[in-house]
Amino acid sequence: MKRTISLIASLAALTLALPAHAQFAKPEDAIKYRKASLTVMANHFGRIGAMASGKAPYDAKAAAENADLVAALGKLPWSAFGEGTDKGETRAKPEIWKESAKFKDASDKMQTELGKLQVAAKAGNVDALKAAFGPAAASCKACHDNFRKD
Amino acid sequence: MKRTISLIASLAALTLALPAHAQFAKPEDAIKYRKASLTVMANHFGRIGAMASGKAPYDAKAAAENADLVAALGKLPWSAFGEGTDKGETRAKPEIWKESAKFKDASDKMQTELGKLQVAAKAGNVDALKAAFGPAAASCKACHDNFRKD
Repeated sequence: MKRTISLIASLAALTLALPAHAQFAKPEDAIKYRKASLTVMANHFGRIGAMASGKAPYDAKAAAENADLVAALGKLPWSAFGEGTDKGETRAKPEIWKESAKFKDASDKMQTELGKLQVAAKAGNVDALKAAFGPAAASCKACHDNFRKD
Repeated sequence: MKRTISLIASLAALTLALPAHAQFAKPEDAIKYRKASLTVMANHFGRIGAMASGKAPYDAKAAAENADLVAALGKLPWSAFGEGTDKGETRAKPEIWKESAKFKDASDKMQTELGKLQVAAKAGNVDALKAAFGPAAASCKACHDNFRKD
């Protein structure tokens, strides 16, 4: 009995530690939210990419602002891959839930690379930005290749 | 001739001052981006609202984080209401472009209120949060009432 109560307490604590789940009334709300956060992130990541590739003039302030935004947005989608969100208007592959540890590793890796990009952008020189952009882009692509349908 | 060059220089400067516009290859990209940023903003604003209304337990850290995110996201949609983005998958009313000064005032007002909400959230008490949430919500609603189709 004591063990059961302890387990319930642990689960309750876990639930409290994940308040984001409670924010989606329906699975389709979660899907819409994760797609939206990735859409905005991709746009601002692209703005940094344009500078890193020389397609847009380098602007240290804009690079730092965009990298901050990208790092903040990069934390958001993951809580929205909860139960029941594998169906509907989504290109999410079943592997997200079947290989959830691998998916978590991929999302953690991306957040780590976005953190490095943020530091590089604050350094205020385009070479640092270029060096960090490639691995960050690769971390996005890795997740798309493995976990997103074409 | 000199006047023409001066005009061209002014237009070039204006273009450089609005780099965000260049980030949308097509009008539908801009529409998708502004809807996505508003979707993510609304979700996190709702998380603050749940605390302000007592539907969710007050969590000072979460309130501050959500308010930071909402304030950052609140700056984004406006550059995506450029020319040609009045048609397509959008509920944007023609008034956005017909009464552009009024629309700008409404979006500025919202950003001001989100800034106040951010300050209130950092104060770390639920009464400050409650006081700032109402006017912020009203500034969202004002824009929806005037500039968004049902």
